[in-house]
Amino acid sequence: MQLLNSQSRVLNASRPSAAAKAVRVAQPGRRSTVRVSAAVHLDFNTTVFHKELAKFADTEEYIVRGGRDKYPLLKDAFKGIKKVGVIGWGSQAPAQAQNLRDSIAEAGLDIKVAIGLRPDSPSWAEAEACNFSKAEGTLGEVFDVISSSDLVVLLISDGAQAKLYPRILAAMKPGATLGLSHGFLLGVMRNDGVDFRKDINVVLVAPKGMGPSVRRLYEQGKSVNGAGINCSFAVHQDATGNAADIAIGWAIGVGAPFAFPTTLESEYKSDIYGERCVLLGAVHGIVEALFRRYTRQGMSDEEAFRQSVECITGPVSRTISTKGMLAVYESFNDADKKIFEQAYSQSYKPALDICFEIYEDVASGNEIRSVVQSVSRFDRFPMGKIDQTYMWKVGQKVRATRDESKIPLNPFTAGVYVATMMATVEVLREKGHPFSEICNESIIEAVDSLNPYMHARGVAFMVDNCSYTARLGSRKWAPRFDYIIEQQAFVAIDAGAEADKEVMAEFLAHPVHRALQTCSSMRPSVDISVGGDSSNVGVGAGAARTEFRSTAAKV
Amino acid sequence: MQLLNSQSRVLNASRPSAAAKAVRVAQPGRRSTVRVSAAVHLDFNTTVFHKELAKFADTEEYIVRGGRDKYPLLKDAFKGIKKVGVIGWGSQAPAQAQNLRDSIAEAGLDIKVAIGLRPDSPSWAEAEACNFSKAEGTLGEVFDVISSSDLVVLLISDGAQAKLYPRILAAMKPGATLGLSHGFLLGVMRNDGVDFRKDINVVLVAPKGMGPSVRRLYEQGKSVNGAGINCSFAVHQDATGNAADIAIGWAIGVGAPFAFPTTLESEYKSDIYGERCVLLGAVHGIVEALFRRYTRQGMSDEEAFRQSVECITGPVSRTISTKGMLAVYESFNDADKKIFEQAYSQSYKPALDICFEIYEDVASGNEIRSVVQSVSRFDRFPMGKIDQTYMWKVGQKVRATRDESKIPLNPFTAGVYVATMMATVEVLREKGHPFSEICNESIIEAVDSLNPYMHARGVAFMVDNCSYTARLGSRKWAPRFDYIIEQQAFVAIDAGAEADKEVMAEFLAHPVHRALQTCSSMRPSVDISVGGDSSNVGVGAGAARTEFRSTAAKV
Repeated sequence: MQLLNSQSRVLNASRPSAAAKAVRVAQPGRRSTVRVSAAVHLDFNTTVFHKELAKFADTEEYIVRGGRDKYPLLKDAFKGIKKVGVIGWGSQAPAQAQNLRDSIAEAGLDIKVAIGLRPDSPSWAEAEACNFSKAEGTLGEVFDVISSSDLVVLLISDGAQAKLYPRILAAMKPGATLGLSHGFLLGVMRNDGVDFRKDINVVLVAPKGMGPSVRRLYEQGKSVNGAGINCSFAVHQDATGNAADIAIGWAIGVGAPFAFPTTLESEYKSDIYGERCVLLGAVHGIVEALFRRYTRQGMSDEEAFRQSVECITGPVSRTISTKGMLAVYESFNDADKKIFEQAYSQSYKPALDICFEIYEDVASGNEIRSVVQSVSRFDRFPMGKIDQTYMWKVGQKVRATRDESKIPLNPFTAGVYVATMMATVEVLREKGHPFSEICNESIIEAVDSLNPYMHARGVAFMVDNCSYTARLGSRKWAPRFDYIIEQQAFVAIDAGAEADKEVMAEFLAHPVHRALQTCSSMRPSVDISVGGDSSNVGVGAGAARTEFRSTAAKV
Repeated sequence: MQLLNSQSRVLNASRPSAAAKAVRVAQPGRRSTVRVSAAVHLDFNTTVFHKELAKFADTEEYIVRGGRDKYPLLKDAFKGIKKVGVIGWGSQAPAQAQNLRDSIAEAGLDIKVAIGLRPDSPSWAEAEACNFSKAEGTLGEVFDVISSSDLVVLLISDGAQAKLYPRILAAMKPGATLGLSHGFLLGVMRNDGVDFRKDINVVLVAPKGMGPSVRRLYEQGKSVNGAGINCSFAVHQDATGNAADIAIGWAIGVGAPFAFPTTLESEYKSDIYGERCVLLGAVHGIVEALFRRYTRQGMSDEEAFRQSVECITGPVSRTISTKGMLAVYESFNDADKKIFEQAYSQSYKPALDICFEIYEDVASGNEIRSVVQSVSRFDRFPMGKIDQTYMWKVGQKVRATRDESKIPLNPFTAGVYVATMMATVEVLREKGHPFSEICNESIIEAVDSLNPYMHARGVAFMVDNCSYTARLGSRKWAPRFDYIIEQQAFVAIDAGAEADKEVMAEFLAHPVHRALQTCSSMRPSVDISVGGDSSNVGVGAGAARTEFRSTAAKV
């Protein structure tokens, strides 16, 4: 079955028996029946790779196992491909281009990996330093590279894609494959009411981590057969009949130990949504609210920062990363469990409210439209930094004298944070996303990728150093989480609202905990580690300059 | 000329010589040329009323003078109309229906004014208490009233209009007139890709105040020939050739002392935008930021509330209402002027940034789409109140012991507020709105309508008691203004940023000050007055229960 290449059957693809079913979703004080699309496994058509059925809680999803021992399969997967053009030199491009080049060499294939840049791009020298060269035909002007490549891996920024896609599509060879690492472009084209030309493949490979980690873990993975970043992949349009194999080959070539199927639509929705929720926006908003609350209650600034930000990006995040969300709750004594329950119960529904709004604003095209509009105003209104406010100055002081072992695990903070994370999860679940995607976009990317950076440099710094799409979204939604948590959750708690038994029962029994266990068994074997305030860490778009300490130790 | 009934020529309507022109807009640190559509006077085709050309700063706009002495003209204006159906019983409906009935009676015309309600509407009894009755044919089921009326004044909520418009349009008589008090429906229909049926008139009359004031000032106006609320009006579609006269007649019948032409598009953009900016959203956001700043600087909670909220809703607002924005600045001594200048200079551009984002989100349909989506989630996520947070509890205490004469005029607070108001103005100006609309949607509605309520009951209370569209928008954008003012303006000020001479020069020379003088000469002759915390004041949608103290004194 080739279901991934059908827009109209997005996500509700596979089995008739697994179609949308009505479930009851508990709400304090009222009950209503909402429709939850059952997560179904997305099928795909591979003749080269081995497809496994993996159990994620109460559902099954196909996956493909990667690793260096699969490189011999790249020959068949990349049949007909003589040149891979990687366009851009931002966060993902240097990593993916170098990984692909190394994997292709390892497989002994005669495929060129070339970088395409604007003639006046300041990245030209950096690409040359990575041994891409004009003389050897592996470095050239954007449209020259596009028109001469059989696989075009398009890694320029979302804003640039929105502006240039008509020219890019027109420049491609018939039968070539357009490769995206984000479904954003599909959202833009839908808003514009246009479709991809029919004579090309359109596929996606989305590594579940920033470019620098994609490169770093690939290098570390050489010694352990495939430490690298997991990827989701999708086939949006299959003109040649082997688009899935090309996509999976690309994912494995980039270093994915596991690859999960998705669709462009599902990917861009969950990705744009996730970064606006617990990955970036929500975590920023709730720590602002918590810090304010704690200082108002009489804590010193430093202590309030420790009990809010440090607690989340440190022990809470590490516990979730290694043992899951339930373990955070279970680590508390009875008195602290009560505090967690109260904070969780009162925060969950307000957070869910904003999460739904975000999801539907993403799904309707509003967020993408808004990002494109904002980018077009950058000349007049460049995005300012957000990490210079009073609270983040306090953070610098706290980090400077940090004793990692003394960071508190505050049950109130943990309750608010885990509630926000569960709200992020629940909306994706109700909207029918597969658990592999839910776990990655709501939990794993937070605790294994972003929170460690935030722990090293602060939440606001992290926001300032993400892609435009993520930064804009985080700046937009963080304050919404802040306000609603203060206006609804804190007000209810201060008025004596107790823990909600039903909400807690749902938390404890939620299938995501089991799904996360499956995902954990597929984690890369090496953890990411970043430098602190004194290092010259840059992350995200246009950077590729992040320095990792290559150690398997946690931060 | 009948330019108002052409969607495609919206706003840039009148004279070729007044077409869009490029002007330079100053920005600290950089200059760029932006296009400003010159405000042009919108023309309209009246054979009944007298059209005057009024000078608003450097532009001229047509206006129509109302007043009770014009009631004899209603006979010709309402030619062919036997029945006016007012649909709904929210904020505007009771006021407009009663005013129209009284004016029609005064003019001695045989036109019935009937109310249309759902059969199970809880408002039935209230309408009867206002002497609308089923027996006399002046109270009936919604679609019965629509199908039997020659002028259908549609005053149900935005959300209900979005849901019901296909049935409503289908029920109308050919040649009848659909009357709106908000262009929201046009935005919804554009998002849906549909148009009005061609055999009806579509007009708008938008009173520049809440329903209760529309009624109250009309009653007070009986003794002074036309105290009442000014209205804008528009002709979107003119099937009968006399749609403008019907619209102007409606405006005058409702009590407008002056009526200003606009378009449905211009009205909904400026209205939805304005309430998200300084009218509601921005003022809420900046007082949250100011209160936090002042308490952090060591002020007591009560003092911080006085220096932020009380200052804005009291003396700043009153000064602008009676003497304009420049008078606020000029009232300070040299030292305080410096503080104002610094606060204004650093706040203006961040506020302008958010104002642009709001405008373009409104113009692109995003905001309307988002409102419609939010309303559809109300069953599961009803909007909570926002006025129970710590700060607004402080506000209750402050108001309880208020000495009006001792409310401070804080130059820092005034600088931030006036900058936000000017940012609201400037975007409308750059987007080509006429000054009559700019002054109303950015200044007059704030200082003469909303701020007095906020002064009586708090800003957050006011938000909680507006229409869904306004509440949703305010909840969405207030935190954005809060964050950007703290992250950009306060950070710059604390880093020692000085006043920006260019920004101040633009403020002092801005044409809006002169335009506002023209508008002030057209103000109703009676001011609005509201009860304080102890009164049972409700305002906005579904209320019509607001109790005014009928006094010409300021609050």
